[in-house]
Amino acid sequence: MLDSWCVVRRKDSIVTPIRVAVWNEFRHEQDSRHPASSIYGAQGIHGAIAEGLREHGGFEVRTATLDEPEHGLSDDVLATTDVLIWWGHMAHHLVQDAVVDRVHARVLDGMGLIVLHSGHFSKIFRKLMGTTCDLKWREADDIERIWVVEPGHPIAAGLDECFELPEEMYGERFDIPAPEQLVFISWFTGGEVFRSGCCYTRGRGKIFYFRPGHESYPTYRDSNVRRVIANAVRWAAPSGGPKPVFGNAKPRS
Amino acid sequence: MLDSWCVVRRKDSIVTPIRVAVWNEFRHEQDSRHPASSIYGAQGIHGAIAEGLREHGGFEVRTATLDEPEHGLSDDVLATTDVLIWWGHMAHHLVQDAVVDRVHARVLDGMGLIVLHSGHFSKIFRKLMGTTCDLKWREADDIERIWVVEPGHPIAAGLDECFELPEEMYGERFDIPAPEQLVFISWFTGGEVFRSGCCYTRGRGKIFYFRPGHESYPTYRDSNVRRVIANAVRWAAPSGGPKPVFGNAKPRS
Amino acid sequence: MLDSWCVVRRKDSIVTPIRVAVWNEFRHEQDSRHPASSIYGAQGIHGAIAEGLREHGGFEVRTATLDEPEHGLSDDVLATTDVLIWWGHMAHHLVQDAVVDRVHARVLDGMGLIVLHSGHFSKIFRKLMGTTCDLKWREADDIERIWVVEPGHPIAAGLDECFELPEEMYGERFDIPAPEQLVFISWFTGGEVFRSGCCYTRGRGKIFYFRPGHESYPTYRDSNVRRVIANAVRWAAPSGGPKPVFGNAKPRS
Amino acid sequence: MLDSWCVVRRKDSIVTPIRVAVWNEFRHEQDSRHPASSIYGAQGIHGAIAEGLREHGGFEVRTATLDEPEHGLSDDVLATTDVLIWWGHMAHHLVQDAVVDRVHARVLDGMGLIVLHSGHFSKIFRKLMGTTCDLKWREADDIERIWVVEPGHPIAAGLDECFELPEEMYGERFDIPAPEQLVFISWFTGGEVFRSGCCYTRGRGKIFYFRPGHESYPTYRDSNVRRVIANAVRWAAPSGGPKPVFGNAKPRS
Repeated sequence: MLDSWCVVRRKDSIVTPIRVAVWNEFRHEQDSRHPASSIYGAQGIHGAIAEGLREHGGFEVRTATLDEPEHGLSDDVLATTDVLIWWGHMAHHLVQDAVVDRVHARVLDGMGLIVLHSGHFSKIFRKLMGTTCDLKWREADDIERIWVVEPGHPIAAGLDECFELPEEMYGERFDIPAPEQLVFISWFTGGEVFRSGCCYTRGRGKIFYFRPGHESYPTYRDSNVRRVIANAVRWAAPSGGPKPVFGNAKPRS
Repeated sequence: MLDSWCVVRRKDSIVTPIRVAVWNEFRHEQDSRHPASSIYGAQGIHGAIAEGLREHGGFEVRTATLDEPEHGLSDDVLATTDVLIWWGHMAHHLVQDAVVDRVHARVLDGMGLIVLHSGHFSKIFRKLMGTTCDLKWREADDIERIWVVEPGHPIAAGLDECFELPEEMYGERFDIPAPEQLVFISWFTGGEVFRSGCCYTRGRGKIFYFRPGHESYPTYRDSNVRRVIANAVRWAAPSGGPKPVFGNAKPRS
Repeated sequence: MLDSWCVVRRKDSIVTPIRVAVWNEFRHEQDSRHPASSIYGAQGIHGAIAEGLREHGGFEVRTATLDEPEHGLSDDVLATTDVLIWWGHMAHHLVQDAVVDRVHARVLDGMGLIVLHSGHFSKIFRKLMGTTCDLKWREADDIERIWVVEPGHPIAAGLDECFELPEEMYGERFDIPAPEQLVFISWFTGGEVFRSGCCYTRGRGKIFYFRPGHESYPTYRDSNVRRVIANAVRWAAPSGGPKPVFGNAKPRS
Repeated sequence: MLDSWCVVRRKDSIVTPIRVAVWNEFRHEQDSRHPASSIYGAQGIHGAIAEGLREHGGFEVRTATLDEPEHGLSDDVLATTDVLIWWGHMAHHLVQDAVVDRVHARVLDGMGLIVLHSGHFSKIFRKLMGTTCDLKWREADDIERIWVVEPGHPIAAGLDECFELPEEMYGERFDIPAPEQLVFISWFTGGEVFRSGCCYTRGRGKIFYFRPGHESYPTYRDSNVRRVIANAVRWAAPSGGPKPVFGNAKPRS
């Protein structure tokens, strides 16, 4: 017997893939003087992330970028997206508030959201967190070592106990609400630590912040990073719980 | 030997009282047709809360209301406030965004915030939570029974295991992030439950949401309610931790 | 491409079912003077729970009871169990410590554990929680109304916002560590509330405590209860994260 | 007016000091071949910790060691202790189970517990956590850099954003339940991170695990470490909430 719950779950099986939208501001890659142009080029960061998801299988992936109408995030697109991935950096201020509000409402309604790297300063992440989301940083010449601190969490599936990346440094204090689950902590050669894999629930939506992904490094081609993102999308997919009923209510009779 | 920590702590001793500001929109009480006018009248909800804190001792209390310039919450007032208490209901939309942003920044910087009852829909609470903060409600003829579920929490000091109030009903689903500590759960005669004592940290600021306090009941004269508010103010007072350092950082040498 | 993560995940798809063991002390049902004997009889509580899982599909279910050798929980059984369900009441003290230690080690290694109703006082649950797990109770003539407070949690999949059961009352204070996720809160006609759906992680293992299931009520035939248990088993299944490496470690070179 | 709450609070003011017992197995220091003998000698680790608390003021401090009758932790001692500090390493197995059970009961009843460094493997900590509490370690030639990640927490009062110590390395995975509040994360030169300041509540008792304090380093003479321990004792002192009422209960009438 297959009940409605199973139908929901089949979304993350081979039968019914999870519908993912990868959003990227897509600016650094189009600036020929920027290292990102030679690393990601026309494919863009969104293209590299989408490629990683397709490798893992079980996803139906599309992409959206800042310069598309409504930033590629129309009501129709959001209504048919299970999990949205977000990368932005230099153009956070150009994202229209109306689109931010639309994404916010969809997250509360159950759409998963994966916020990557410099997306910590995006309007949508700050609106969901309620804090500044500020942090320490240092751009060059560091190595990040990412430790799994919750090996029982689904986002840690298939990883070793730690893995390394050449990356920009992000350091504490990271001004976020304490994560509901803290999956990863990063170590940097320069002496810093960072809560680099942070899970939240807002409304019916699951949110995962994942630190790596500076535009000057080929991070989204790294197999561990691709695995984490695939795991996170599966974890963040809507789980089919009850839509809340708000407002004036009659007493039990 | 008394070090700087002790100086901070003396704020909540008799020597250096905690500086509290009680904010109230103060509208229902001034409407002669509304029950609040006969219950709280010219004293206002803010006056009743301030009276309760003075009874408990160890606080330096002032009040502020919507119709004062800058809603009574100037930079100077906020800079000299350790804990802000917030009551609002019908006039949330009249609170200026600039004042909300100012309060928000002060909370992140360490000022405590106690949000009462219908303050769940205030701009400042929704901004800090990142969710709608919506809920179920029923105005008349209910009894609330408030259970202590974390008896080790300082906000439960001096209480019995439960206490009752004639009150408006608020019911789940309450659309908030999961509380960092859940101190109270309410039971209502009509069949509902509610997470009625919720602790959060945002930035360096501590936030406590406490459910009771409909304007048609003399809730802020209840001795248990007054005790909870006094406890919460002590818990939420700034604790003197380090001011975060954000931005570009040099490596350890 | 199907990587190792997908292989793990297929356990909770139709291809590779989750291997569940339902453990029951199986005493009340065999006592002809006890109401449990007419409700569950020879099928036992374990049989009714197993039946519910088979209805939902995607599970490979076996049962084990107190009076079997090693209580039916040999090393071999545990090594081939993804999720263990536990029901006990009058015979907690008869469960051998060696078996409790074995189950404990398997949970830390990743096996999920679902503890039902009076299992709150089992040796295994108390060992994992570190507290007394004591509570209030009242056996007869109550109705439980179970509210979903985290509608985004996978264990709430497919439920309405609340559902009711004729049941024994359990009331706060429930002496447990604060749940990592609190999915359900129960309301009782007699005036009590209870944290009735509590998620924990211990080691790599996921643990869910679910309140309903007194032996004098046909609770494990209720469709909502069966759905919750099926959801919980899926949530608690091992997720394939890294086995921790403890002990003396060389520095990074 | 001073109510009962204030009486409770005065314990952490100058008027009524917090009653602290510092427990130490006191073995390494008495072994003349061990570096601890020249660092702490006859004063012992317990003496150095007690000295630090006396410097801070507001505490009434006594010490207890393994070789005293009942390990110095009789019913009378525990009944008059607000916060117990625990250091042990080589002799965990020599601590009598009856004493462990007694301490456990007192913690659940409200006594605070500060567990230091190698106390992670003490019987009392493992019993309260429900996990192995295992970890990675490396004894020599490392530097620990401790970062404050929750600057709003009272245990971070008076600290800078980070501080350093020559210390033994402890690294993740640390097999503990996720801390309710994570105050500190440590960075080590050798490439590891560690959750080094972890808050828990068990029953009415507050528990703080603090990582530093290997016996071969003069860590308990460090001013930052002494400040953290003093802050932690204040945070963990009993707060006077209701004693839980368990067992058979009458319905509300």
